[in-house]
Amino acid sequence: MTAHQAGVGMATDIAEQPAGYARLLDEGAGAIARVAAQIAEWQPKFVLFTARGTSDHAALYAAYLTEIQLGIPVGLVSPSAVTLFGARPRFADALVVGVSQSGGSPDLVEVVRVAREQGAHTLAVTNNAASPLAAAAELHVDVLAGHERAVAATKTYTAELFALLMLIEGVKAGGELPADERAELERIPGLAEKLLADPTAAELAPRYRFADRIVTTGRGYAYPTARETALKLMETSYIAGLAFSGADLLHGPLAMTDPDVPVLAVAGSGPGGESMREVLAKLGERRADVVTIGAGMTIGTPAVDEKYAPLLDILPLQQLVLSLALARGEDPDAPRGLKKVTETL
Amino acid sequence: MTAHQAGVGMATDIAEQPAGYARLLDEGAGAIARVAAQIAEWQPKFVLFTARGTSDHAALYAAYLTEIQLGIPVGLVSPSAVTLFGARPRFADALVVGVSQSGGSPDLVEVVRVAREQGAHTLAVTNNAASPLAAAAELHVDVLAGHERAVAATKTYTAELFALLMLIEGVKAGGELPADERAELERIPGLAEKLLADPTAAELAPRYRFADRIVTTGRGYAYPTARETALKLMETSYIAGLAFSGADLLHGPLAMTDPDVPVLAVAGSGPGGESMREVLAKLGERRADVVTIGAGMTIGTPAVDEKYAPLLDILPLQQLVLSLALARGEDPDAPRGLKKVTETL
Repeated sequence: MTAHQAGVGMATDIAEQPAGYARLLDEGAGAIARVAAQIAEWQPKFVLFTARGTSDHAALYAAYLTEIQLGIPVGLVSPSAVTLFGARPRFADALVVGVSQSGGSPDLVEVVRVAREQGAHTLAVTNNAASPLAAAAELHVDVLAGHERAVAATKTYTAELFALLMLIEGVKAGGELPADERAELERIPGLAEKLLADPTAAELAPRYRFADRIVTTGRGYAYPTARETALKLMETSYIAGLAFSGADLLHGPLAMTDPDVPVLAVAGSGPGGESMREVLAKLGERRADVVTIGAGMTIGTPAVDEKYAPLLDILPLQQLVLSLALARGEDPDAPRGLKKVTETL
Repeated sequence: MTAHQAGVGMATDIAEQPAGYARLLDEGAGAIARVAAQIAEWQPKFVLFTARGTSDHAALYAAYLTEIQLGIPVGLVSPSAVTLFGARPRFADALVVGVSQSGGSPDLVEVVRVAREQGAHTLAVTNNAASPLAAAAELHVDVLAGHERAVAATKTYTAELFALLMLIEGVKAGGELPADERAELERIPGLAEKLLADPTAAELAPRYRFADRIVTTGRGYAYPTARETALKLMETSYIAGLAFSGADLLHGPLAMTDPDVPVLAVAGSGPGGESMREVLAKLGERRADVVTIGAGMTIGTPAVDEKYAPLLDILPLQQLVLSLALARGEDPDAPRGLKKVTETL
């Protein structure tokens, strides 16, 4: 075995994301359409997601999609209510969705098992078709991301996002993706490839070399991107990553921002991005150090409908996180104190 | 007008909390029981909370209570999905609950208005019976906390917690609180009064004088306490407050903790506290600087059922936050960049 070069695993995982999107469109579409058709037939009255860490951010994206695209109310099940406090909610008419790259977290398996027992329909979204979570749920979507090298998840995150988007658009259409939607999705691998070739984000990393905290913010579909960026900063550079929805930032944490606090603000081309203008203005009043991500922004990303932006905006932010960890002398492939599968009860 | 002495407003608000609990039991119980009886009659199939900032933490507590005590699935509605992206979820069979001390945030008013239009039953929980949010909802619970002096909310937070607990226990019993539950609640004002007389927490503040971040953690019912403490630290001392459920902490952010990172860990006397043992052990391995809150812990709080602990555990943490802000030369009554009512759309 040759000596490990820090960050090579994460860099390789990041680079594979466009291929991951293409693979889901080519090899995953049939299976996802069948799951979508079944859910469309069930007509769940509400959808409850359960997930942790990075997968929780993919679930949050799916929650926005479910509310906005399907008009179904959503919730996020707290595993501890079920696993520690014995909650047995009446889950009839619900679809409970567990999202986990490994499919191995015992608490999520238990939530799905209990939900099924209580009358819910259940779905697992994982990167391991042979996992306990996949076995516990009635339906399974495989995100087909392949082996992830780094402990910090990147390509499994975006594969979860894309698979959930394909699934929810499929449910909306009764199963198969409509041709116009599929055409939009087919643009994503190429846009992602082009975006990853842009060095802007990685070149910004050195200026955060001595930051002890970074605030990330976005609204609506962009909020999961802000959350995921903050988590990656914590996992790989041990920086205090503080994620807020743009609106919540104004309700208190704004006090914390000053010229010494760097802010990464995701502002898309749509209503979420529009609403970030007020947030950016307030951050300007406080003279915060703001770098914006979006179409025509400092870190420029393609001008797509905001529903697709999370598939793209996270890519340069992953590159920034990777470069920053390396600049700080850390190995993002193997952060201190972490392993790939976290088992919590 | 006499010169303002920093922190007097917040100190006065904090000291009034036991009286706030007693007031809800004396003057609030009748109205809350009537609202509870109505909700019990409706038998909602799921409950969706919508709130921001501190009130979002009260809503999170109510979400755990609803799942565990009532066995009803819960969700947290994202205002932006409704107000920015035009989501119109099918809300029949749902109860939508807006929680806001001022009742003045336009986005929450809009969510409640849309939910009602889409067939939901609606409830507002506020500290202002004349507020737009109270007017928009079918039902209103007044938390009766009186005028709050400081911008950083303390007594309106605990009044929301207590009113929501009274309400949910009322729903469980069909309206009026059962005698044994009422007897438990009647112990809270006295326990709170005694706890506030303990100087331990305030005396711990100086050691955080130069901390740039503080991690807070708890599981289940204790998680809202961790979240609220982190927000108060950000609002008043401009410290990066990082709140994690104990389980989520192990899924990544653990890497961030080291001997230089202070951790405030809420560990109650029950299943949530039990499950924190593993988290404390891992934090110990990483040699984090951990201060524990709970019965028999460094910051000692009464040994009550974990469902009541959030009403008590937050009190010494508020005192710690206040003393720390003063030690850092800040005025927690009027944090920079904030005002009492935040208007977001």
